[in-house]
Amino acid sequence: MKIVAFQGEHGAFSEAAAFGYFGKRIKTLPLESFDKVFAAVGKTADYGVMPIENSIEGGVLQACDLLIESELKVIGEFVLRVHHCLIADPGTRLKDIKYVYSHVQALGQCRKYIQEMKFIPIAYIDTAGSVKMLKEKRLADSAAIASEEAAKMYGLRILKKGIETDRRNYTRFLILAKKSDVVDSFVKKNKGGSIKVALTFSTSNKPGMLYDALGRFAKHGINLTYIQSRPILGMPWKYNFYVECQLNGGNERFGETLGELEMGSFNIKLLGYYKSCER
Amino acid sequence: MKIVAFQGEHGAFSEAAAFGYFGKRIKTLPLESFDKVFAAVGKTADYGVMPIENSIEGGVLQACDLLIESELKVIGEFVLRVHHCLIADPGTRLKDIKYVYSHVQALGQCRKYIQEMKFIPIAYIDTAGSVKMLKEKRLADSAAIASEEAAKMYGLRILKKGIETDRRNYTRFLILAKKSDVVDSFVKKNKGGSIKVALTFSTSNKPGMLYDALGRFAKHGINLTYIQSRPILGMPWKYNFYVECQLNGGNERFGETLGELEMGSFNIKLLGYYKSCER
Repeated sequence: MKIVAFQGEHGAFSEAAAFGYFGKRIKTLPLESFDKVFAAVGKTADYGVMPIENSIEGGVLQACDLLIESELKVIGEFVLRVHHCLIADPGTRLKDIKYVYSHVQALGQCRKYIQEMKFIPIAYIDTAGSVKMLKEKRLADSAAIASEEAAKMYGLRILKKGIETDRRNYTRFLILAKKSDVVDSFVKKNKGGSIKVALTFSTSNKPGMLYDALGRFAKHGINLTYIQSRPILGMPWKYNFYVECQLNGGNERFGETLGELEMGSFNIKLLGYYKSCER
Repeated sequence: MKIVAFQGEHGAFSEAAAFGYFGKRIKTLPLESFDKVFAAVGKTADYGVMPIENSIEGGVLQACDLLIESELKVIGEFVLRVHHCLIADPGTRLKDIKYVYSHVQALGQCRKYIQEMKFIPIAYIDTAGSVKMLKEKRLADSAAIASEEAAKMYGLRILKKGIETDRRNYTRFLILAKKSDVVDSFVKKNKGGSIKVALTFSTSNKPGMLYDALGRFAKHGINLTYIQSRPILGMPWKYNFYVECQLNGGNERFGETLGELEMGSFNIKLLGYYKSCER
């Protein structure tokens, strides 16, 4: 049985994404940090699942940083519709709530509701983890923000459903593995479908490099779908970029193109290619 | 006397940036959120000071979102060297500390130290605010991360200085106002110096727009210094971009160039031009 590592406690959205991508017949491995998920893949786990971007809050920056440093490969993506619930002890009434605990991304996705209710947001390790903590500590003046499943799992009560700022609230997860397919057999397998590529590069050498690098992709008919700048530690105002590109069929020389990008002077690191699940 | 609004409590790094930019003869106005700082400028305050980027943690994403929506102008920038301290009640010893409170950005800037010490990070409204809270609640098992000034201001003890992950830890702040100078007189005043432009645009219409937009800047000899993608609410996987560009002297037709960019089909919104304080 495949073992899939994720950050958070059982009931986390990352775990839902793991089941969504691999199906129910896997063993999920909850870990407390993204670092530990990266470290586990290829050792105590076969795969890792990690959020990279949310449609309300934007990029998961720490995930980008880890991808830039890591030797793991991206082999897939999964988009999850994220429904947030306000969850508390069965004895807690809405008017008793002063503090609300959740993952910092979830707090951001529900910022409007939190402000309206005048709750004080407190960032906690994970959505489901904050439900578990609430149950253990029995905090009467607090609630957690997490999934319906997390509320059921830990036996707490849902006070309100759908508290995300916009109902089009999706989180995009990447599937990580130690090795990826050989590019040519991957392209053959997914012939006709839309293929995505994740890569990183730095623009630390000279000004204008971002434009030059994007020009290379454009030249090969590769369309940028996501870009995130990340600072380079110890080099203020110099950046690494995490980017995802889409290859809309018909590129027969995909492997060659990727090789050319990787060999260039842009310090491009290819993270992987995978079937796109975007519409 | 000028009134300058900032997010946080007295002793926050944003307040230090306000004094750094305007000098000591201003009245600072502490407010609890970025939203309130934006709302105050032109009403209860003359100016606002807001962090836009840190050299370890990267972009302050909520600041970008507010700039994209706001009608305020960017009129200056200030770079602050950020030294973080571990601060606790005089009765608390290092080995008593289980939880560490601070702004989420400060927690990120000290992530390595927090992990080494096995502290549980809890995100709080503000660095100096977490020191104030610690003093009021007298939490014996907790510490705060903030500036030396904040420790002095609230009479707590510094257990360790310089806990940021890299000593090249700088935060870049933007100065906000209701109106900006007329572009031509601004250019004349700063003749020979390096001028920066902050602007936003969206690429929601068609693929390849980012490359096209960057090409427009390149054509006019404008060099990109910072780019941050932000999701458009309700349009998953479509983006607004917040960008800063540098104009390295010699562009006599600066006003014209900006006007051309603004009039184009890229939905560019000019946020302001200001003297660069980058090296």
